[in-house]
Amino acid sequence: MRNIVLTGFMGTGKTEVGRKLATSLGMKMIDTDQLIEKEAKRPIHEIFGEEGEAHFRKLERSMIQKVVKERNAIIAVGGGAISDAENLKALQKNGFIVCLEASPGIIRSRVSGSKRPMLKGSSLTKRIRKLLDLRKASYRKADVTIDTSTKTFGEISNQIVAMVSENVMEQVRVKLPQNSYDIKIGSGILSRIGEELSGLGIKGKVAVITHPRIGKLYGRIVSLSLKKAGFQVKTLLVPDGERYKTLLTANRLYDALIKNRFERSSCLIALGGGVIGDLVGYTAATFLRGISFCQIPTSLVAQVDASIGGKTAVNHPMGKNLIGVFHQPRLVFIDTQVLLTLSNREFQSGLAEVIKYGVINDARFFEFLERRMPEILKLDDQILRRAIIRSCEIKAKVVSEDERESGWRLILNYGHTFGHALEAVGGYKRFLHGEAVAMGMLKAARMSQRLGLCGETVVKRQEALIRRAKLPISLPKFRSADILRHMKVDKKVVGGAIHFVLASRIGKVSASCL
Amino acid sequence: MRNIVLTGFMGTGKTEVGRKLATSLGMKMIDTDQLIEKEAKRPIHEIFGEEGEAHFRKLERSMIQKVVKERNAIIAVGGGAISDAENLKALQKNGFIVCLEASPGIIRSRVSGSKRPMLKGSSLTKRIRKLLDLRKASYRKADVTIDTSTKTFGEISNQIVAMVSENVMEQVRVKLPQNSYDIKIGSGILSRIGEELSGLGIKGKVAVITHPRIGKLYGRIVSLSLKKAGFQVKTLLVPDGERYKTLLTANRLYDALIKNRFERSSCLIALGGGVIGDLVGYTAATFLRGISFCQIPTSLVAQVDASIGGKTAVNHPMGKNLIGVFHQPRLVFIDTQVLLTLSNREFQSGLAEVIKYGVINDARFFEFLERRMPEILKLDDQILRRAIIRSCEIKAKVVSEDERESGWRLILNYGHTFGHALEAVGGYKRFLHGEAVAMGMLKAARMSQRLGLCGETVVKRQEALIRRAKLPISLPKFRSADILRHMKVDKKVVGGAIHFVLASRIGKVSASCL
Repeated sequence: MRNIVLTGFMGTGKTEVGRKLATSLGMKMIDTDQLIEKEAKRPIHEIFGEEGEAHFRKLERSMIQKVVKERNAIIAVGGGAISDAENLKALQKNGFIVCLEASPGIIRSRVSGSKRPMLKGSSLTKRIRKLLDLRKASYRKADVTIDTSTKTFGEISNQIVAMVSENVMEQVRVKLPQNSYDIKIGSGILSRIGEELSGLGIKGKVAVITHPRIGKLYGRIVSLSLKKAGFQVKTLLVPDGERYKTLLTANRLYDALIKNRFERSSCLIALGGGVIGDLVGYTAATFLRGISFCQIPTSLVAQVDASIGGKTAVNHPMGKNLIGVFHQPRLVFIDTQVLLTLSNREFQSGLAEVIKYGVINDARFFEFLERRMPEILKLDDQILRRAIIRSCEIKAKVVSEDERESGWRLILNYGHTFGHALEAVGGYKRFLHGEAVAMGMLKAARMSQRLGLCGETVVKRQEALIRRAKLPISLPKFRSADILRHMKVDKKVVGGAIHFVLASRIGKVSASCL
Repeated sequence: MRNIVLTGFMGTGKTEVGRKLATSLGMKMIDTDQLIEKEAKRPIHEIFGEEGEAHFRKLERSMIQKVVKERNAIIAVGGGAISDAENLKALQKNGFIVCLEASPGIIRSRVSGSKRPMLKGSSLTKRIRKLLDLRKASYRKADVTIDTSTKTFGEISNQIVAMVSENVMEQVRVKLPQNSYDIKIGSGILSRIGEELSGLGIKGKVAVITHPRIGKLYGRIVSLSLKKAGFQVKTLLVPDGERYKTLLTANRLYDALIKNRFERSSCLIALGGGVIGDLVGYTAATFLRGISFCQIPTSLVAQVDASIGGKTAVNHPMGKNLIGVFHQPRLVFIDTQVLLTLSNREFQSGLAEVIKYGVINDARFFEFLERRMPEILKLDDQILRRAIIRSCEIKAKVVSEDERESGWRLILNYGHTFGHALEAVGGYKRFLHGEAVAMGMLKAARMSQRLGLCGETVVKRQEALIRRAKLPISLPKFRSADILRHMKVDKKVVGGAIHFVLASRIGKVSASCL
């Protein structure tokens, strides 16, 4: 997570609030004043007295340059720190800046009797007012300001947790030889899409492409934000459902784009789940030999998987995603608040992909999910966001190393060889994608055990976690010939052989050809 | 052009044949024995006598390493040179190796009385026989062998010119950040496509996609070559004509590929003109998120333009090529002999693009075309091939520097803004692409003159050359509103403004926005 930087006038409670925050968010606490004292081996009022303010500011500046390299930290900095433009810039880069305020009277009562060097001299209240005036302009540069005059430190800390959740955008980079891009993740950030796109240098025409249902929920907030940022916005609706992810629907979108004079520099926005993302990505990839697009995934499965990595596709009567291209989005913009409007079944389906990331690449993340599944199911904002961020990080890492799925990226298909076939046999109606993947993962786990690649625990732990995520663990009755037939037209077939991804332990899988 | 290396036993006429070849092909003549003598400042028989054969072979090896860096050269090397594996490898890399033979009796009569060091000692004929035996194995490594016993040097030279034309493949590299590839150009090389594809590491299933008419002419030779190289070959026919370059036809191809179990590692071959190239490229780009494909262009316009650079597309009812992606071929394989079956009108249409390369990037090439147009129109193999190679080189250079047409590549659109609109207004029936481009170039030239960018000569020279290529120079009557309407849905529109490429002189153009 990004750092939280606490600043503000002396006596506003930075250290105390910082400690509370550190405990409740599980982050480490750093106090630059304390570190400076420790390094200089004497208190700050002595540094001021003996070497003057300029020298102290020098020490402070170098300490700030040091601590901003931390992540997941609460950083309390002295009241004068952000008056310095360089300090401010360094702290903002990877931190959310909270300024604590209080009335001069309250500050006076809190600091009287202390040895604070800046308050030496004439009448205390007068001096406080004067300093507050001087610093007013720089305090305004904080991301948020909180008046602490009448609140307990616990209340202030809670307020910051809420604000951070709303405002902090986490950023995960998908690094590619060409066309690298960011995944931005936050809560309640939809209204900021306009400025984000604009910040990427995109301008002119954008089309927000969505289903009627999603459009009704989020179309307006997205369009307004885009218009405010100066875009010409066109909203295009496509019918909901995998069966409309076809060349025919793409063709209707081409018609609309041509009619509305969309150009190579225009941008498409996929606002919806995986179906919308695939379809819009495919349309962007193939219109005028490729225009830019942005993903705003609204389902959990799209947020942690489908929207990242540039796989775009439409379906063919003979199989899912058989027509497609790799085309990377310019931005993946994830607002976790939109998950609140998903049905339980849809949300749980997405958890299959989240669990998958633990199995294929991160045993500690798998343990985190084992411990925190109840909170995730309750959509606890902090915990759920952490699960989404970690999933995005793993997906981004794998995609960065193998953009075109020529090798390592295949591990993302864990549970998918069987899962895809199961979806197809169920006519893409009986199971949601994640449900089929959950069953596919169990199938792959059992196959791994039977082949002696892993022990029973590896199977049992997956089964238990899938069950706790309220996903199906028992396979329905199907004719194996049907399953096999569908596996054989999968894209993963090489030289007629079917590829499986098998687990050797939690956190480690590899692709095999059977 | 690749070098021609002449080797063979003493007395087979290497030097004499070399001189004839140099004159008739306009290439320079290099004789390694002469160069060695010049550098050592004494004749070879003295080097042999004083320092022994091993020392001479050392001098020869270093001389060969030096001369193979030449291009467009006839290189005569001593009879023993290619017995050395290192020499052979160096000479083969960029050269076509011709071995001259003669009977021992003829050799004896040609060399008796000379100071050749290898023949010192016992009975001459016996010594010749023994040496011939020793060298037999290395002489077999030449690309071709010619018996010179009963021929004049002129006859031998003519025979080599014919052989070189048939066998030498010129190679032009399209250098890209990812997916660089070669354009290979030769005469009568279709039967070598199998080994070429195989040499790229492609294997398994290939589909030769072509029209019935082209398939009848060249389908068999291509398929046979592919089968001989171990490929499983499927031929797919699509109807001829721009109006079939649609999503619907692409969809039929997907059906066939899925039915025939094509996989990600399979390869498509576009055997035909620009329409086939665009359609097959688009299908390859979008099938299973991109499989490899190879271009075998059979029209002049496809050979010098459409097949190079990875632009693939299908048409939309509202405009040509509006649906497409960039997808680079693995190989562009150009057999100039197939041009013999084009109609005059089709062939001349291709010349518009050839002339375009002169205007946009190479004044000397433009002059070459001014001088050699009559021979080109007669399909003179040498001259025409030179024009094609130079066109491919310019296209490759431009594409290499700007794969996605974000800047410089736009210069390739010289004559095309207006040309495309003209094609559209004529319903894609009235004009061939090159005819429309020829008129478009004149329009662009006149516009450049009117804007004061170039003088009248620049217009007149283009007009004269276009006329000499038997291409249309007078514009048909159309309503300008129709033309303008079509220009406005072109892919080259940016911010509602139409882009033109304008000429400042022959060999120099730049893109402008009007």
